[in-house]
Amino acid sequence: MRLHCQDVPGIVYHVSRFIYENGGNIINAEQHAEAMDNRFFMRVHFDCDGLGLSRADFIKQLQALANTFGMETALTFSDTRKRMAIMVSRYNHCLYDLLLRHQYGEINADLALVVSNHPELEPVAREFSIPFHHIPVAPGQKEKAEANVLNLFSEYQVDFIVLARYMQILTDGFISRYEHRIINVHHGFLPAFKGAKPYHQAYEHGVKIIGATSHYATAELDMGPIIEQETVRVDHTHSAEDLVAMGRDIERHVLATAVKAHGDDRIMVYRRRTIVFR
Amino acid sequence: MRLHCQDVPGIVYHVSRFIYENGGNIINAEQHAEAMDNRFFMRVHFDCDGLGLSRADFIKQLQALANTFGMETALTFSDTRKRMAIMVSRYNHCLYDLLLRHQYGEINADLALVVSNHPELEPVAREFSIPFHHIPVAPGQKEKAEANVLNLFSEYQVDFIVLARYMQILTDGFISRYEHRIINVHHGFLPAFKGAKPYHQAYEHGVKIIGATSHYATAELDMGPIIEQETVRVDHTHSAEDLVAMGRDIERHVLATAVKAHGDDRIMVYRRRTIVFR
Amino acid sequence: MRLHCQDVPGIVYHVSRFIYENGGNIINAEQHAEAMDNRFFMRVHFDCDGLGLSRADFIKQLQALANTFGMETALTFSDTRKRMAIMVSRYNHCLYDLLLRHQYGEINADLALVVSNHPELEPVAREFSIPFHHIPVAPGQKEKAEANVLNLFSEYQVDFIVLARYMQILTDGFISRYEHRIINVHHGFLPAFKGAKPYHQAYEHGVKIIGATSHYATAELDMGPIIEQETVRVDHTHSAEDLVAMGRDIERHVLATAVKAHGDDRIMVYRRRTIVFR
Amino acid sequence: MRLHCQDVPGIVYHVSRFIYENGGNIINAEQHAEAMDNRFFMRVHFDCDGLGLSRADFIKQLQALANTFGMETALTFSDTRKRMAIMVSRYNHCLYDLLLRHQYGEINADLALVVSNHPELEPVAREFSIPFHHIPVAPGQKEKAEANVLNLFSEYQVDFIVLARYMQILTDGFISRYEHRIINVHHGFLPAFKGAKPYHQAYEHGVKIIGATSHYATAELDMGPIIEQETVRVDHTHSAEDLVAMGRDIERHVLATAVKAHGDDRIMVYRRRTIVFR
Repeated sequence: MRLHCQDVPGIVYHVSRFIYENGGNIINAEQHAEAMDNRFFMRVHFDCDGLGLSRADFIKQLQALANTFGMETALTFSDTRKRMAIMVSRYNHCLYDLLLRHQYGEINADLALVVSNHPELEPVAREFSIPFHHIPVAPGQKEKAEANVLNLFSEYQVDFIVLARYMQILTDGFISRYEHRIINVHHGFLPAFKGAKPYHQAYEHGVKIIGATSHYATAELDMGPIIEQETVRVDHTHSAEDLVAMGRDIERHVLATAVKAHGDDRIMVYRRRTIVFR
Repeated sequence: MRLHCQDVPGIVYHVSRFIYENGGNIINAEQHAEAMDNRFFMRVHFDCDGLGLSRADFIKQLQALANTFGMETALTFSDTRKRMAIMVSRYNHCLYDLLLRHQYGEINADLALVVSNHPELEPVAREFSIPFHHIPVAPGQKEKAEANVLNLFSEYQVDFIVLARYMQILTDGFISRYEHRIINVHHGFLPAFKGAKPYHQAYEHGVKIIGATSHYATAELDMGPIIEQETVRVDHTHSAEDLVAMGRDIERHVLATAVKAHGDDRIMVYRRRTIVFR
Repeated sequence: MRLHCQDVPGIVYHVSRFIYENGGNIINAEQHAEAMDNRFFMRVHFDCDGLGLSRADFIKQLQALANTFGMETALTFSDTRKRMAIMVSRYNHCLYDLLLRHQYGEINADLALVVSNHPELEPVAREFSIPFHHIPVAPGQKEKAEANVLNLFSEYQVDFIVLARYMQILTDGFISRYEHRIINVHHGFLPAFKGAKPYHQAYEHGVKIIGATSHYATAELDMGPIIEQETVRVDHTHSAEDLVAMGRDIERHVLATAVKAHGDDRIMVYRRRTIVFR
Repeated sequence: MRLHCQDVPGIVYHVSRFIYENGGNIINAEQHAEAMDNRFFMRVHFDCDGLGLSRADFIKQLQALANTFGMETALTFSDTRKRMAIMVSRYNHCLYDLLLRHQYGEINADLALVVSNHPELEPVAREFSIPFHHIPVAPGQKEKAEANVLNLFSEYQVDFIVLARYMQILTDGFISRYEHRIINVHHGFLPAFKGAKPYHQAYEHGVKIIGATSHYATAELDMGPIIEQETVRVDHTHSAEDLVAMGRDIERHVLATAVKAHGDDRIMVYRRRTIVFR
């Protein structure tokens, strides 16, 4: 259960009492008080085995509690794994990384399908027994292509989307359908080096550290709430191409970290910032 | 309040109810379940302003709760700042670092005094207006010197001790007086390179990364519970002396991080591991 | 060209003159003076296109120069790519990583074959079109299995070997055949946590940083010259299994870094230390 | 000796011959070929003890060599230590750090004086026996104040200037007097978060990593050639004030690294990039 509300006394107590009295057993609880707007955030992971009422009734009761405190709440059950779609173009490093981590059990979600605007990576998906769909994006036909993708996502019951170096800009309409459920990786240390060719921008600036950023996609390009960032040291001996190669390592890692946190329901978004619980 | 006990259902609820019903307001609570021994750890930071009973009575009530669950509890009040002693020899980098961080308000403790077996760093302490005592350690006279130090600590009401590159090995008797209240910095990545000249050991081994470790001092040299570690990359161009210089930067940082965590009562020790809450 | 010798005046000049007068053009040169034994190391990368003599004659002349200065020299030509063998057991993360980096052109070597004591990873090798040989190691039959491996290496003209989490200890006889040409990855921060289950050792010690190490295999287990190390921060919330998962990321990275350096002939070994030129 | 020129064959040879034939002994030489503009950079550290001609004559000969290859050269002698000025305002962390590193012998330069627009840090300079001059900057009187500073620098024979969190923007006139000889530290990961309050900008963006940058000051604010950068991981639990505190650690480190490299004459600037030799 994740919730946020005005920061007033007693929230931890009332939430833990609510869970306890309904037969739940708290396994872990984390809070965060954001100074901005005096806002309180909480995530509680509790065991439902002993719940003395149905889930539907629990949710009804929770709504009553939420109303009392003006809480926004989100409740998910760990026995209902989320279903994830991966969108790629031609780069394979993030795709392989996610497929392997999924295989190792690191990602708490089911991999529903892979969608690409190019056919090249089909064998990779197939080798991991994941359905692959090639949806080309013809010039001027982006909305039609997106409609096809949305149909697929509906058919595959997709809960969230991972843009694993998908080289197309999605329309606002598409993004708004999956608010805070599209995870993108940007190959630069945002907010520096937005847009195209960030490694080449970094090279020309002569920076001594490059970075990669995973974030929720929003209508404003490369400006959505940041989930994870990572950096790596570079120097004058590295060409722009070297930066691209070094960047591959941190791109896949920041993306995987974000996907794992999302799969575990450990992320809360407030304004343009994320709270990523442990 | 910090506590640990067997991990049974309802602890978060009972602790938060106890605090709530006595008029406390939880600001932050963190838990940790250690798989080893099925042990549950909790730290609760709560506001006492509205307590409906005296602190003494609160403590009595807490003891009753603790008995019910077989908890070990520790309660400290943030309006009672701990008093810290620093022990040094001749190296000044950790001392300066702690004095500056204390001046910046980063360390949640009062700096009671500086004790050294050498006189050289007296001007440094004086410049920050901290009492300095020179207690030489003559060969074969360690216990006598330690007795003098203990007298000073008693007089200055010292709660915990920071060994800021103090180059003497303390006796078991001394250490046992301040169990888990003596913070040492070792200039190596423990458990590698225990004992003397760790940077030279590291150089000869040709390691590509060196480290520093802060830990609670225990009777077994350099084996106490680790609080913080940090590493820095080195290569063949660095001499053993370069490693010493690079090590200074990480030594002061791991020590300061440990001192801050201890000052905030964020550390719990269980067996040889530490839980360092945020 | 790599060389080392006593550190006397004029070496850089004599080497650069030798190359220049024979029609070579220096692209890059790096030196290193090791204080131990007053030893001088040099690596020169030069363009051979304008050589005024045959390679065989160049090598003869070089030998004369080497004799003058008591140099040990090694000369390799970048148009003769080295041939690499990968040995694996069942873990696939390092294998995938090397196959992908090889595909990206990051590794300056040809991938000759993959050898495993288990059959499971054959499809992975096949998918990248690399020959795979399953050489089981029956109890008490290690030397026979190694003989088979050596035959394969001979047949495939293997220059160096990468142990990509190969879970067998090689015999001294095998190792001595490929001195400083077998690259191993150890899933611990050597020299701490040698031997089996290093992540579990690290967990029990309560370290706050874990590491991985790539090194040349030598007769003494986990004690060969270190090529690269990497660390990652952990805390009390991580189980031993979490450390294993986090370790996978740094294992594959330290191994790849070592393989790339070896492929580029950028490594020199002196005693138990490595010099890794840029 | 540092030099750069068009990248043509034979430069390493001709430079090493020039040094050898004049009686110099090369201790270390590094080269770098910058793909942009096909430019070649070289730094040679050689022993002058056996020079067969006067330094003045050596410089004359060097000029002839430079003319042949169209080289830009810079020659400095390690027995002539550079003289460094530090400019500060009220923050003391970078000042203390530089004073201590100077005391440890880490910085290859003499500390000529400290200049401040505020009087508060005079005791700090005095404690390290460094002259301190308070030059206030009255509104509208910046150029007058700078003239006073320049007079002091002339009097103290200052070679280069370190802005150790000096909170005034220098005029272009001042900066142009010390081209590539004014080292500034910016408390943000440039080119992100230029200008004022970078940590607060970072906080509001919700970045997960903050940075600090040392660079040569140029007329364009916070856009001069970057010498060193460092980053540190942050999360939602950190307030903007926490970022300020964490930033102090990396600010002092990136500044010190830059000052050491400049003191050793290891930096070359080409366009907006720096080459920092080891």
